[in-house]
Amino acid sequence: MKNILYKDGKLLLLDQTLLPNQEVYIEPKTKEDYYYAIKKLQVRGAPAIGIFAAYGMALIEDDKAMLKQYLDSARPTAVNLSWATDRMLKAYYDGKSLIDEAIAIHNEDIAMCKKISEYGLSLLNDGDGILTHCNAGALATGEYGTGLGPLLLGKERGYNFHIYSDETRPLLQGARLTSYELEKAGCDVTLICDNMASIVMKQGKIDAVLVGADRIAANGDTANKVGTSGVAILAKHYGIPFYVLAPYSTIDYTCATGDDIVIEERDPQEIKSMWYTRDMALPQTKCYNPSFDVTDNNLITAIITDKGIIKAPYTTNLMRIKND
Amino acid sequence: MKNILYKDGKLLLLDQTLLPNQEVYIEPKTKEDYYYAIKKLQVRGAPAIGIFAAYGMALIEDDKAMLKQYLDSARPTAVNLSWATDRMLKAYYDGKSLIDEAIAIHNEDIAMCKKISEYGLSLLNDGDGILTHCNAGALATGEYGTGLGPLLLGKERGYNFHIYSDETRPLLQGARLTSYELEKAGCDVTLICDNMASIVMKQGKIDAVLVGADRIAANGDTANKVGTSGVAILAKHYGIPFYVLAPYSTIDYTCATGDDIVIEERDPQEIKSMWYTRDMALPQTKCYNPSFDVTDNNLITAIITDKGIIKAPYTTNLMRIKND
Repeated sequence: MKNILYKDGKLLLLDQTLLPNQEVYIEPKTKEDYYYAIKKLQVRGAPAIGIFAAYGMALIEDDKAMLKQYLDSARPTAVNLSWATDRMLKAYYDGKSLIDEAIAIHNEDIAMCKKISEYGLSLLNDGDGILTHCNAGALATGEYGTGLGPLLLGKERGYNFHIYSDETRPLLQGARLTSYELEKAGCDVTLICDNMASIVMKQGKIDAVLVGADRIAANGDTANKVGTSGVAILAKHYGIPFYVLAPYSTIDYTCATGDDIVIEERDPQEIKSMWYTRDMALPQTKCYNPSFDVTDNNLITAIITDKGIIKAPYTTNLMRIKND
Repeated sequence: MKNILYKDGKLLLLDQTLLPNQEVYIEPKTKEDYYYAIKKLQVRGAPAIGIFAAYGMALIEDDKAMLKQYLDSARPTAVNLSWATDRMLKAYYDGKSLIDEAIAIHNEDIAMCKKISEYGLSLLNDGDGILTHCNAGALATGEYGTGLGPLLLGKERGYNFHIYSDETRPLLQGARLTSYELEKAGCDVTLICDNMASIVMKQGKIDAVLVGADRIAANGDTANKVGTSGVAILAKHYGIPFYVLAPYSTIDYTCATGDDIVIEERDPQEIKSMWYTRDMALPQTKCYNPSFDVTDNNLITAIITDKGIIKAPYTTNLMRIKND
């Protein structure tokens, strides 16, 4: 599963909005192409956005500082985006080859995902039932993914997990992306609606929950796709471990707690009419459509990063890896 | 919101398959019209189906015993349907006015809903934020509804609730029906995806959760639309009261606990493709699609029936109202 392909000055992006039943690669050429690919979620997943934006910084001829600001504004919550464009801008000021820097970011991400996957796999047993929410797979990263990494790596090593994928409304990343890529990798995956997480946990089908993260505060509070906090509360209720898997770079030490994380609010039409053959609510019906929610650190069994497995007390232990 | 209107020999039915954006009243005239209105879900909700069939029994000139059998066959599993046609057939054999009997069934249902609504409203305060799941409103009953009853009755009395409606995947009853009928009644309603219940609770927007019930076991365990148990767990986590509102007749004393309630499993296409402009998962992707789940009695703050407000210990207190 390769979502971002760079070769000989040419970048190809697998358009995730068309999955799972159409596999189409687009070739962004203008800065607007890059901006809208990020904004419209043709590329999504924090690391993948960062990699993609890094290539954009390298390949688009423009004032690089202004280009960075422009690309960053496509997804203000995505910390990996501004992290990658910052690094590219620094490389530019340092007179480095920008395309080499973008390729380095890409390769480092693959290596990083593999480390996370190894750490995560060490916490699982063959035959485990796993619940996942949204998509933190190979499509969201360079390869393997974060939340799905242990499952994809485990599959390569002959593990047989029984995976349940929340469909993840309103954008259905679980249906369109997670169940798609796990299916493609030959995993045993069952798609459920988000509101069915409780019944599958109650039936004893789930041994662990694996999710990714969009931003982790210094105290471990974790912003991820809306609904993640609900899954964490259900997991705690049923006594099931809840694991957050994310690159070290997802930790934002400038946010003391989750309260400091701004939650992006999105278009009501994603709830009311997008995907549908007809409107599913009245035109005047108000919607609330937050993109993320924050999972309190006390609901998280462990945060698994490329710097190792972190457990509570998170403020201390996350600070420790900062200084490693 | 009147879904079934009878006046001077004429019956009008609001076609629920066209909601929320087309309000069409049909006038069934033949027995086939009644049959297909039930079969095609132009009328849905157990009490509403019973009321509608009762009018059919009164208004269609035919062999009444054969008519009953014919109407019952439109939804063989709908217990309220055969209950209502049984009662109408008995009235026919007893030489009663059939239209008076149908009107009585209709009015008794309204009175029952109003009692539940009164009890429920006594637990709420003006200005409360309310979360509801699925549709237990006027559209499913004679008037008012059960889960939505206190909200609609409160609106009549000048209460201003801030209501959040879970869209309720996969069939979207919350989007298509609940947010529609609350909007029509002038209520302040906001539609959310099911996985957003946690964030609105965390933000302090929810003071109480109101849901209906499909079946209540003798110990208070409650089967309702899938996702209800998850909402109950979130409510408990956030310290929010969780109320089940249902007619006394919903209590099934033959089920000792929720484990005795059989959960219907439905078509995977409801998750993967129904409503959608294109398939949202691969054709071979497995789905699990339970129609209901069971909410454990220890998650329920009170069960509100037309016989009053029942609190724990449920086994004792539900038995007490049986003997009232």
